[in-house]
Formats: sequence, C-alpha cells, structure tokens
Amino acid sequence: MKTKITVINGPNLNLLGTRKPEIYGSVTLDEIISRLRQRASSTKFTIAAIQTNAEGAYINAVQQSAEDSAGLIVNAAAYSHTSIGIRDALEAAQIPVVEVHLSNIFAREEFRHHSHISGVVKGVISGFGAHGYILAFDALVQMLESGKA
Amino acid sequence: MKTKITVINGPNLNLLGTRKPEIYGSVTLDEIISRLRQRASSTKFTIAAIQTNAEGAYINAVQQSAEDSAGLIVNAAAYSHTSIGIRDALEAAQIPVVEVHLSNIFAREEFRHHSHISGVVKGVISGFGAHGYILAFDALVQMLESGKA
Amino acid sequence: MKTKITVINGPNLNLLGTRKPEIYGSVTLDEIISRLRQRASSTKFTIAAIQTNAEGAYINAVQQSAEDSAGLIVNAAAYSHTSIGIRDALEAAQIPVVEVHLSNIFAREEFRHHSHISGVVKGVISGFGAHGYILAFDALVQMLESGKA
Amino acid sequence: MKTKITVINGPNLNLLGTRKPEIYGSVTLDEIISRLRQRASSTKFTIAAIQTNAEGAYINAVQQSAEDSAGLIVNAAAYSHTSIGIRDALEAAQIPVVEVHLSNIFAREEFRHHSHISGVVKGVISGFGAHGYILAFDALVQMLESGKA
Amino acid sequence: MKTKITVINGPNLNLLGTRKPEIYGSVTLDEIISRLRQRASSTKFTIAAIQTNAEGAYINAVQQSAEDSAGLIVNAAAYSHTSIGIRDALEAAQIPVVEVHLSNIFAREEFRHHSHISGVVKGVISGFGAHGYILAFDALVQMLESGKA
Amino acid sequence: MKTKITVINGPNLNLLGTRKPEIYGSVTLDEIISRLRQRASSTKFTIAAIQTNAEGAYINAVQQSAEDSAGLIVNAAAYSHTSIGIRDALEAAQIPVVEVHLSNIFAREEFRHHSHISGVVKGVISGFGAHGYILAFDALVQMLESGKA
Amino acid sequence: MKTKITVINGPNLNLLGTRKPEIYGSVTLDEIISRLRQRASSTKFTIAAIQTNAEGAYINAVQQSAEDSAGLIVNAAAYSHTSIGIRDALEAAQIPVVEVHLSNIFAREEFRHHSHISGVVKGVISGFGAHGYILAFDALVQMLESGKA
Amino acid sequence: MKTKITVINGPNLNLLGTRKPEIYGSVTLDEIISRLRQRASSTKFTIAAIQTNAEGAYINAVQQSAEDSAGLIVNAAAYSHTSIGIRDALEAAQIPVVEVHLSNIFAREEFRHHSHISGVVKGVISGFGAHGYILAFDALVQMLESGKA
Amino acid sequence: MKTKITVINGPNLNLLGTRKPEIYGSVTLDEIISRLRQRASSTKFTIAAIQTNAEGAYINAVQQSAEDSAGLIVNAAAYSHTSIGIRDALEAAQIPVVEVHLSNIFAREEFRHHSHISGVVKGVISGFGAHGYILAFDALVQMLESGKA
Amino acid sequence: MKTKITVINGPNLNLLGTRKPEIYGSVTLDEIISRLRQRASSTKFTIAAIQTNAEGAYINAVQQSAEDSAGLIVNAAAYSHTSIGIRDALEAAQIPVVEVHLSNIFAREEFRHHSHISGVVKGVISGFGAHGYILAFDALVQMLESGKA
Amino acid sequence: MKTKITVINGPNLNLLGTRKPEIYGSVTLDEIISRLRQRASSTKFTIAAIQTNAEGAYINAVQQSAEDSAGLIVNAAAYSHTSIGIRDALEAAQIPVVEVHLSNIFAREEFRHHSHISGVVKGVISGFGAHGYILAFDALVQMLESGKA
Amino acid sequence: MKTKITVINGPNLNLLGTRKPEIYGSVTLDEIISRLRQRASSTKFTIAAIQTNAEGAYINAVQQSAEDSAGLIVNAAAYSHTSIGIRDALEAAQIPVVEVHLSNIFAREEFRHHSHISGVVKGVISGFGAHGYILAFDALVQMLESGKA
Repeated sequence: MKTKITVINGPNLNLLGTRKPEIYGSVTLDEIISRLRQRASSTKFTIAAIQTNAEGAYINAVQQSAEDSAGLIVNAAAYSHTSIGIRDALEAAQIPVVEVHLSNIFAREEFRHHSHISGVVKGVISGFGAHGYILAFDALVQMLESGKA
Repeated sequence: MKTKITVINGPNLNLLGTRKPEIYGSVTLDEIISRLRQRASSTKFTIAAIQTNAEGAYINAVQQSAEDSAGLIVNAAAYSHTSIGIRDALEAAQIPVVEVHLSNIFAREEFRHHSHISGVVKGVISGFGAHGYILAFDALVQMLESGKA
Repeated sequence: MKTKITVINGPNLNLLGTRKPEIYGSVTLDEIISRLRQRASSTKFTIAAIQTNAEGAYINAVQQSAEDSAGLIVNAAAYSHTSIGIRDALEAAQIPVVEVHLSNIFAREEFRHHSHISGVVKGVISGFGAHGYILAFDALVQMLESGKA
Repeated sequence: MKTKITVINGPNLNLLGTRKPEIYGSVTLDEIISRLRQRASSTKFTIAAIQTNAEGAYINAVQQSAEDSAGLIVNAAAYSHTSIGIRDALEAAQIPVVEVHLSNIFAREEFRHHSHISGVVKGVISGFGAHGYILAFDALVQMLESGKA
Repeated sequence: MKTKITVINGPNLNLLGTRKPEIYGSVTLDEIISRLRQRASSTKFTIAAIQTNAEGAYINAVQQSAEDSAGLIVNAAAYSHTSIGIRDALEAAQIPVVEVHLSNIFAREEFRHHSHISGVVKGVISGFGAHGYILAFDALVQMLESGKA
Repeated sequence: MKTKITVINGPNLNLLGTRKPEIYGSVTLDEIISRLRQRASSTKFTIAAIQTNAEGAYINAVQQSAEDSAGLIVNAAAYSHTSIGIRDALEAAQIPVVEVHLSNIFAREEFRHHSHISGVVKGVISGFGAHGYILAFDALVQMLESGKA
Repeated sequence: MKTKITVINGPNLNLLGTRKPEIYGSVTLDEIISRLRQRASSTKFTIAAIQTNAEGAYINAVQQSAEDSAGLIVNAAAYSHTSIGIRDALEAAQIPVVEVHLSNIFAREEFRHHSHISGVVKGVISGFGAHGYILAFDALVQMLESGKA
Repeated sequence: MKTKITVINGPNLNLLGTRKPEIYGSVTLDEIISRLRQRASSTKFTIAAIQTNAEGAYINAVQQSAEDSAGLIVNAAAYSHTSIGIRDALEAAQIPVVEVHLSNIFAREEFRHHSHISGVVKGVISGFGAHGYILAFDALVQMLESGKA
Repeated sequence: MKTKITVINGPNLNLLGTRKPEIYGSVTLDEIISRLRQRASSTKFTIAAIQTNAEGAYINAVQQSAEDSAGLIVNAAAYSHTSIGIRDALEAAQIPVVEVHLSNIFAREEFRHHSHISGVVKGVISGFGAHGYILAFDALVQMLESGKA
Repeated sequence: MKTKITVINGPNLNLLGTRKPEIYGSVTLDEIISRLRQRASSTKFTIAAIQTNAEGAYINAVQQSAEDSAGLIVNAAAYSHTSIGIRDALEAAQIPVVEVHLSNIFAREEFRHHSHISGVVKGVISGFGAHGYILAFDALVQMLESGKA
Repeated sequence: MKTKITVINGPNLNLLGTRKPEIYGSVTLDEIISRLRQRASSTKFTIAAIQTNAEGAYINAVQQSAEDSAGLIVNAAAYSHTSIGIRDALEAAQIPVVEVHLSNIFAREEFRHHSHISGVVKGVISGFGAHGYILAFDALVQMLESGKA
Repeated sequence: MKTKITVINGPNLNLLGTRKPEIYGSVTLDEIISRLRQRASSTKFTIAAIQTNAEGAYINAVQQSAEDSAGLIVNAAAYSHTSIGIRDALEAAQIPVVEVHLSNIFAREEFRHHSHISGVVKGVISGFGAHGYILAFDALVQMLESGKA
C-alpha cells in the first residue's frame, strides 16, 4: 500500500510569509510543509511537497505523483480558475484529491469564485489559512483509512 | 469565555441515514452530532445541535446562538443557494462561522454551485460527508484557541 | 398498499375564490378539495389536503406525506420558482408526484416560467384552473394502477 | 356547433413505438389515436389526426383545422422549441388549444425547457406519456362544455 | 373607513440598534415604531407593528392586515430580493402599500439592487434610515386622504 | 434587362384580411398584390407573387426568383426570426432585396426584434401595414433605375 | 388641420456629403431636404428641417414640433441607440412619427442593432440612403390622408 | 450655513400637467415648485428650481448648485438610466442629494429599473407622484437639521 | 450487412459550384457525389445522395435512410444551427453518422459556431471543402469495418 | 501642414484640482494645459484646449477641430462610456486621435471598463494622471513626424 | 519544398492508452504516431511528433515547426479551450494547420464546446479517436498537393 | 535606490519584425529594447529585458524582477487576457508597473478587449506600436522621480 501524500502548490505560493505578511500571513510555505510533516509523523503517511509557477509543470507533478502517492493535496492558486489542463490531469488520477485554498475564495473577487478543479476532487477546504492544509491531511487520512477514498 | 459551539442544520437533513442510504449514506444526523460530542469531549468546548426545515427558524437559530455560542457550524442545505436572510443573520453574528456541505456541491447541479452564505463565513468545507463536521469542529477550535477567530 | 393521495398547496392559495374573483375565479380551495374527493369516491383512493404559506411547513408536509401517501399532487405556487428545499424534499420522496398550476405559468411574467420542482416530478399540468387538480388526480391514478408510478 | 377535435403531431412522432421502445415506449401513434377515439365515443366529439415532419405542413394543418374543429391537441415536438411560425398560426386560431408532450420536457436538456407555443395555448400537459393525450382531451371537453374555451 | 396602518418588518430587523450600532445605527425597531405612533397621534390613523424572520409568517401578516388595515408599510429586508410569495400576497391585497429600506439598497451589493416587491407597490423609499418610516407614513396618509390610494 | 419584381410572403400571411381584421387589418394579401401591380403599371416593372408556409419552399422561391427577377420584396414573417436558411439563400442571390414587415416588429414581443434576414438585404421597411409594400416597390425601383442596386 | 412635416436630424448628419463621400455618399443634408420639399410640392404638406448634435436640443425640437406639425420624420443617428430621453419625448408627442436611417443599421456593428426609438414610432425605414427620407414622407402622407396616423 | 435647496429636473419634465394629463397627472412642474416653496416657508430653507432637457446643462446645474446649496433634490428623468456624467457630478458634490421619481420606475419597462444615480445619493423616493418632492424635501431637512447629511 | 452510405445535404447546397464560384468554389454537388462514388468503388460500400431545402424533407430522409443504410454523411447547412428536429431524427437513428461542413464554421459568423447536430453524431469534419466528404467517407468506413460504429 | 493639436475635455473635468484634491489631485485643468503648452514650445506644434460638460458641444468640438488641427487629444470622461455620437464624430475625423484617462479606468467600477471611443482611436493612455496628457502629446508628435498618423 | 508534417500534442495526451483504457482507448500516443508514419510512407511526407504539458512549450513548438514544416496537425487538448497564446502562434504560422480532437468535444461538457484555435485553422476533425489523426494527415496532404494549402 | 527597469514580454513577441512585417511592423523586439536603452542613457535608469512564451516563466520573471527593479514595463500579450497568475504576481510586487500593448487591443477581436492585468497596474498604454514602450518608460521615470510611484 502506498503511504506518500503529495502536496502540490501553484503560482505565487512561494511568496508566502516573506512578503506582505499583513495580507498573506507570516507563515511560509516551508513552515506549512513542516507542520504537515509533524502531523503526519503520528500516522503511517509521509509528505512530499512541490511548488511551481508553471501550469505545465503542475500537470507533470499531478501525473507523476498519481503514480506513487496515496492521495493528493492541491492548491492550484490562480490556475484553479483558468486551467482545464490541471482538471484533466486530476480527473485522470485514480487516487483521492483534496483541494485547499488559504483564503475564502468565495469572499473575494468574482473571478475567484469558480474553480475548474472543484468538480473533480473529493472535497474542498477554503478559508482556514495555513491550518487548511492540516484539515486536508486529516480528511485524506480519514478517507484512506476508512476505505472511502 | 463562551464554550458552546452550535451546529445548525437546514432543510431535509433530518432525513439523513434513514432513507435512500445508498445516496445519502447510512449515518444519521444524530450519529453525526454524537461523533461531534465525542470529539469535543477532549476539548473545553461543548456541542449544541439544531435542525429545522424552515428558513425563518434557521434565522432565529442563528440570532439566538450568536448570543451564547463561541462559534457556529452551519449546513444550510438548500437554503445555502436561495437565502439572503440567513446570510444577513450570519453576517450580523460576531462569532466565527464555518460552512459545511456533506456532498461536494461543486460537482453537482449548476444551481448548487453558488452559496449566498460562503461570502460571510470564515471558511467552507465541502464534500467530506459526515467527517466534514469533525473537520469543521477542528477548524473552529483551532481558530478560537489561536485567537484568529 | 397505500391509498391516500395528499394535495399540498403553497402560499396565497388560501385566498382562492374569496377575493379578486374576476382574476382568480370564484372557486375556493375548499371546493377544489371537495371536487377531488367526489372524483376519488369512485376509486379506491382518498384525498388529504394541506395548505401553508411557509416554505419550511411545506417541506415538512412533503416529508410526512411521503411516508403515508400513495402519491402527491403539489401546487407550490410562488415557492415553485424559488425553493430548492422543496425540490430536494420531493426528490427524496419515493412516490409519484404531479405538479399543478392553476394559471398557465408559461404565459405569465418571465420569473414564473421556470419551476425548480418540474425537474423532479412525474409530470406537469398548467393552465386549466381548478380542473387541473382533477386531471392531476386522474393522471396519478392511471400511474398507480398501471404500475408506472 | 363544431364537434371535431384535431390532434396535430410533429416531427419524429411517426417513429413512436416502432423503434427504441425502451426509450419511447411501445405504444404507437396509431394506438394513441385509437385510445383517443375510444375515449371520445362516449362524448359528442370526434377525433381527427395529422402527423407531419415539416414545419410548413404543420402550419397548414393548424390553419385548416382552425376552420372546422372545436379545439386542438398539439404536440409540435422539436418545433415547439424553434418555431415562431407555429406559434403565430396557433395564436391566430380562435379555438382552444392544449399542448401535450410525452416526456417531461422540463427534466430533459436545457434547450427543451422553453416552448414558443406555451405562451399562446390554454394549458400544457407534459410528462404523462401516451396518457397525456387522454388528459388533454378531457381538459378540452371540460372547457368546451363549460363555455370557458 | 379603516384607520389602521400596519408596519410589517422582515428578517433580522429585530436586531436593529442592539448590536453593531456603528453599522445599523442606535435606533431600535421599538423606537422606530414609537416615533411612528407619535407622528400618527396628530392624524386619524393608528399604527400596528409586526416583525418576523419567517417568509410564511410574513405572507400571513400581509394577508391578515390586508383585511383590517387602511394601508401597509413594508420592509421585507432580505426577502425583498428572494420572495415571490410575498410579492403575490402584496399584489392580492387591495390597499396601498409603501416599501421602505433603511439603507440605500442601490449603493450596496449587486444582489440587493433588485426587489421582487417594488413592482407591486405604490412607491419605494430607500436610504433614509429610521426616518424613512416617517416619510412612508406621510406618503400613505397623503394617498389615503387625497383619495389616490 | 430583367423587369420582374418578385414578392415572396411567408407563413400565415395567407390569413391576411380574412380573419381577426381588427388586428391584422381588412386588406387581403391578394389586394396588396393588386395595389402593387397598379403601382407597377406606370413603370417598366411587373410583379410576381408567391406565398408559402414552408421554410423549404421559401428557400426554393428565393433561389428560383433570383434567376429571373430584377429584385425581391420579402416578408418572411415568423421565419425572419428563426431561419438562417432563408438568410443564406438571400445572401447568395445577386439582386437587390427589400425586407418588409406589416407591423412594427420593434414594438412587439422581444423575440420579434431580431431578424436574421436584415443583415443581408438592402433595406428594411417595418410598421406601415399594407402600404409598406408600395414603399418597398418604390425603393427597389429607385435603386434599379439609379444603378445603385 | 396642420400641414407641416418636421424632419429632425441628429449628431454628425451635418457632415453628410461633404466628407468621406465614398462612405456617406455625395448627397448633403441640404440636398435631402430639397428633394423632400420637391416631393412635398405636389401635396398639401410642407417640410421643416432641423439638425443638431445635442441630445437636449433634439428633445426640445421634438417637443416644439409636436405642437405645430402634422407628423415627424426622425433620424436620431447615434442617439437612437443611447437616448431614452428622445424616446420619452417622441412617446409624449401625439402625432405620427417615422424613423429613418441612411444605412442599414442591422448590417452594421452590434451596438447599432437596437434603437430605443423604434418601439414608440409608427414605422422604421433603414438602409435606403437619401431615398429613405422620400419613402418616409410618402408613408407619413399616406397615414395622414387615410386617417390611420 | 447655506439654506438654499435646489431642485433639478431633467428631460421632458417641462411637459408635466399640460399634456396627456390622464397619464402624467394634471399637476404642472410650476405647481410642484410652488408646493415645495409653501412647505419650505415654515422652515429656514428656500427652494431654487431648474429644468433642462440637456445632459450637459444638467451637469452644469449640479456643479453650480453644489457650490451654493445646502442640499439637492434631483429628478434626472430619462438621464437617470443613461448618464454617467450626471452621476459623476453628483458624486463630486459634497452636499446631501435625494433622488425622486414621479412614477414607480420599478413597475415600468425593464430599461427604467436601473438608475446610474441611485448609487451615489443619500436615498431614493419613487412612485408618489408630485407628493414625492415634498417627501424628499422633508427627508433633506431632517438630514440637514440632525447633522446626518 | 448493409452497405449503402447515404449522404444528406441541406438547404442551398444545390447552388454549389454554379454561382459565386469565387466564394463557394467551382465544384458542384454532383461532382462531390461522383468523387465519393469513385472513392467507394474500391470498397464494399455504395453511395446514395439526397439534397433538399426543406427541414421536413430532411427529417424524412434521415428516418428513411436510417432503415436501409450502414451509415450517414450529413451536411445540414443552415439547419445545423436551428433544427432540433433533425437532431432528434439523427439521435433516433441507430447507425453511425458523420457531420460535414464545407467551410470552417468556427471561423465564420458567431451564429454558425454552434451546431445542434454535433452533440449526437460520431464526429465532425469542418473546413476541408469538397474533400471533407472524402474524409467523412473514410472515417465511416473505418468505423464500420473496425466494428466501432 | 497643420500644426495645431486640440485637447478636448469632457464632463466634470472643469472641477479638477479645485475640489476633493485628495481624490482628483491638486493639478487643475488650466495647469495641465499650461504644461502641455510648455512641452509643445520646443516643437512645431501648438495647443488649443476645449472643455465642455455637454455631449452635443463635445461633438461640435470634434467636428470643428477635425478641420483645422493636426491631431486630437481626447478625454471624454463619462461620455467615453455612453456616447456613440462622439465615437461617430471621431471616426469621421481624418486626423490621428489619442484617448487619455487620468485614472486607470480598468481598476475602477465595472461600468467604466468599456469605452465606446477606444475602438476608433490610434491609441489609449490610461492611469498616469496629469502626466498622461504629456505622454499623449509625445505620442501624437511621434506619429505626425514619422508619417504614421 | 518542405515535406515534414509536425504533430503537436498537448496536456495529458502522454497518458493515452496506458491508463483508464476503458475511457481513453488502448492506443498509445506512440502507436498513433507509428500509424501516421506508416500512412506517410507511401507519400512524400514525413512525420515529426511533439508532446508537452506546458502552454509555453506548445507555443515554442508551433513557432519552430512553422519554420521547417509543410503543415501542422495540432491537438492542443485542454489548451484548446483556454489559450489565446497558442491561437496567436498558429495564426502567425504561414503553413496549413488541421485541428484534431480524439473525442467529440461537442458532445462533452459545456466548457469543451468552444476552441480558441478553431477560428485560425484550415479545418477541424473531432470525434474519430486515433483514426482522426489519419484523416487529418490525408486532409493536409490533399491540401498541400492540390495547392490549396 | 534601485535604478533597473525591467521589461517583460510575453508569448509570440519574439516573432516581432521577422515575419509578417506588413502586419506586425518591421521593428524587432531587439530594436525596441535598443531604443529603450538609448532613451534610458540620458536618465539614471537602466533597462533589463526578458521574453518568454511560458506563463510560469513570466510569473517567475515578475517575482524576481520585483526584488531588484525600480519598476516594470509589461506586455503579457495573449496572457493578458487569460492569466490570473500573472495578475497575482504583479499585485504582489511592490513597485510601479506599466502595461503596454503594441496594437490598440480595443479595436481588435472581442476577446482581446479585457485584460486581467489592467486592474492591478498603474496605467495602460495601448496602440502606439514600438513607440508605446518609450512612452511607458517616460511614464515610469516620471512616477519614480516625482515620488508618485
């Protein structure tokens, strides 16, 4: 049985915590991944993390991790709203996927209300900041262990 | 400090588990509340639960629990898509609110993709079935204890 | 086998016949129910009738009559155009439902052309005034007796 | 007083019952007309029936039967959604018209939800299969005999 | 001649003045009604006041006050934007109706710009806070006394 | 040089004058053609007239008269709003075409405001009743004689 | 009986014929008015002509000529597509109005397809160049003399 | 402190009362202004009145009266629906503005339902005929005297 | 096994090659059919060809050839964009259908971008001129021989 | 060769600098023109400046300056979004035109995102405040001197 | 003369045949290219093949192959629906391009019905699975050899 | 103080000048950069230039140059209309940005009228060809030197 859970982060998420902390918070993406690994340490799962600003690289990451991972946590950021290619890659993957957004996208600009990805994932978690990744991990683990994935 | 977390469920959720289990799952609303109470038992928070099929009663419940609760978990079901009154009641409440949907509403009919409520809550959790309530509770507790609520 | 057919009438239908008869006709809702009972008297079915101005009460009525009735005749009036909650309740019911409108809703204001309910019922009868209830009863009986319900 | 009721059927309805019976049912258009004639035999009305795949011929049929019939039962099939010409012909007719659809058009594809014809008929009956023609006949008779046509 | 003027207030208006006064002002609904009664004291009219969070109760209130009142002042709050049922009840009432909104709804969110009710009332007063009720009363009195109601 | 001007009339125009004269006027299509012929008698042009309720026949008529006529006067009635086929036939014709409507289509129902045909004709004359045909004839003659056709 | 027919021309029509003749033709607005006067000389009517680039002045012209004219020929040019004020002025006028456009507005840019004015005039003539004014005059005369204006 | 209240009326309002009285009522604009002056006589405020059919003149009037007036009552008539220029002028003014419409614009044609101006004024009064100006004056006075303007 | 492949051509395609050759090319419909027959001569299939300008006749042709043909090549021309009737007929046929367009409809006017037919055929070939029929034939043969039809 | 460059400013731009300087900046329109003249002093071009609040006067200004100017700098302010008349005047002008906006109109309200004028000018400069006029002048000069105008 | 034909495949097409064969078929992209090479072996053309998941790399591939290829076969997959950049690159290429889709995109989700690319290619082939590439090759060869490319 | 100004060019701009010069002009991107450097030589600023066809690389370039540049000149070409990721990167940058388009995008196809980027930049310059970059540089310098950046 596979035990790797891959977290794939999209464009501009590499900027987290290091600039405009009054807006994006002071937690960096590295710290989010550290927290996830700490959470995972008491389970049988491990965390792999990828960040890219490129749509093509994001699709590659989905395809490759779909081979060796038990589940995916995806935050496609801006590509959530414009990429059918990532949607197609996720739909082709045969493992459970959870979509995360740091901010509550439904309380922001109109063009962020719709995500192409939401229609092909197990569930969506939006608005809980860095903690949303922990919730997504817990949700994935619950699915995988209960056999509902 | 207030320690009650109120869960407010909307129309037709009283049918959960007792009919069409192949669609809605075999977990009843009572069992979901029991699981929440078990989860809460290791925290300082307690769970209060309300279910109603009426929009006016739902608004009443939001107004009243906004007085005596530390936070709200809301699943307004069909009213999520049609009620501005519930949105207004939630917006007036001065405590953190988490929105839950059992199914992934973004993968269902077009008219369920938009929720009037999402714009005024802290975050949204959609598609994790009964487990979504546990995730919402965890998220609320994390907010309340970290002072981010 | 269940033999009760429940007729559930929505908002403002209690005004039928008693005011503005030049518009709404002079037949009251009570008379419509009487005619239905007369029609039913030569069959094995009986008629139960409910009227409410409240969406929540309407949903309750659908849920409860879905337990003890052989079929439903529904005229949700204005709620036809705004209530997803009633749609969900009807969809969950496992008995045949016929939708009735006194006036021809397709020949009235634009906002009355679409009914959320029509997508989950067996059929729609619109524009025949009080007689539409008789037609709906006949249709239900035909379905129930032919085993097509 | 005129006693002929003309039933005008549109494109592809000649295929009824003879192909894809699992979808369209096994009742042919001829049988529907036979049942209508049987129903009519206990009244003072008689049934005339026309079927055509051509929009122009359909318009001709409406114009001519408007001269010698007491009322019309129309199932314009696909032309319901595209023909303003048939709408105009029906609007010009000075006899009552009832619109019938075999399937519940409101539960099918989006482009079948709107009928150009519905706005100019007395009423609409949709979703009752072959029995819908009987209901339409009953409705027409009721109108003609009560003087409300 | 009837002399009662009924004021019917909708969802969340019971919160007026007691919470978030920086937004909703410090005037309570009770004070608004008091001011109306003071204004009415120098006329032949009296004030009756109703507040409800429920759409069905709102419809009931419209139906009942349409029997015994000379005119209505309605603030349906959130239901203004979603309720066809209240519109139908108001349209059936045979007495003059004035619609009031505390805030200027045209300067708020897009979904508050349209009111289902505005199309069936005598006039609309929007944006004058608590004073808007006084203006509505004056307008009703002027109509009733000049015979233009 | 060709001297025939063909007038092609579409669905339901054969009903002109003989029914609902309070709406459609008491002038028949035959009389309109007669008046056109009288007008033409003082010119070098002659009038040919066609009426059909069928879209296919209308297209045939356009194709054939495009061969032997100097210009066309077309009133496609309801097909104006739905037929791309007639548009294509007119666009292929290499002679001047004038579009006529008896009523002012821009003051009628929304769905009559747009004509597929208007984009491919020389000009449009709408709202002058039977006299519009005379105006169209004059316009065509002016074009043909001035060499602007 | 009044015998003046006023022609009111809108923005940029003063440029006719003097610039870009390959597009707008070489006929000036003065020549169009001359041709109209020549046409009128054999009737009992006379022609008055106004041109303005200003919406307010156009409204003034409509109001004033509605007092002393038997009918109006209006070419509001660009204001046809944007002015509700001119529409209101024309609607208030109690004399027949004919709308003229030099080019076929339905074959130009999308934003020229809709005219606010068309809904309140007797008829529309579009696409016949300068000759359209003659056709409009003939139409007005026919209406006024036949008593159909 | 400034005590002048300026009333600015837009296109076609000069026709009030003198033509089509069955539609627009028999009250002229002069009489409305007189009534306003009578109302003002018992206060410290005076009334100045302007009427113009031109958008540019309307903007000028707003700019100039914003300098010397305590508040504005505006009825931009047709320009309400089309003028962003008047909106900009009103937004730049630093005095309170009340928008008035004689008729209930929400019960008229679709294109009159939206006003560009409503988003930048204090409040809107629509549907009370000539009396609406008195209500607007009272509202302005209440604002100015209570310091809420 | 059936070996006839029927090609059904719609309105105005009879004009191919004989007029406006600079636009439509100089190949006639007869020549296209000849080329198809030459191509077919080296296979076991034969070609039948139909052309009609009438929607009803087109539907008839689809129904009849669905009985005796192995597959269909359809070019419904203008009816592609407006006919739900032809769509229904094709959907009812139980043989493979390929849709052909001479021009690239996606590079033409907006109203030609959508085809009602495309959703019910095996595939679409658009933009290859006369050669598109050969490609469609090859595609049909490949399907029929590989058993994927 | 003509050497005058005319700057035409639209509604409310006369208010620049003198009121609400925190929003509109403290530079007046006179100062902008002065700066333009200073810039022009080192070239062979001179500056003429017009400001008007009226659409008709704006069109007049465009027509007249098109006769005697080498190029135009236009800031139609609010009319940019509503005036087809100004668009038509600019399109008729045979000299290069540059459109300027002080603020970045694409970062403001939705209704300011579209300009009717942008489709007929050489280029658009938006968001650089008073300096945008200098950039527009430089752009015009570069075009005129390089022969690309 | 150039004889290379380049096939450029977009995102997720590298997954063809190796996963979810019940949906995507069991033919791999390598096999498709092999079949194309076999088909090409009897012509003077050769096949070059590229696959990438990245939009930028796709644009690079179009630009480079436009230099050295005789024609292009493009399947941009998901990018067909979202990339204007690929459209621009294809439009700039001066060689014939054929667009291929494995599935019939018109019979899938709404968001796959529109392709940005279709407007700038020679033709579109959609719905014939792997065989569509052969058809595209045949179409390209026919164009290139007949000089119509 | 930083003195580097980075110019970031998007997809297909590498083709400038070398192909289709009749459309895109004969100036290459290198020449544009040279001209910018020449312009910069008389200021304290220097020019860095990047071109990429990839959205991800474009985002990287924005992020990196936001660290070491004083301001940005961006021409995202086709990505302007489709990329929210670039918008997010630009919004996160804390230096002034100017958007440039070679052609006047508002006079081209509908889908090029909207830019996701325009809402987050200081200003937009569109339609001045290669010279637009010089104008953008001048605008940036003026902002940076006047302290308005």
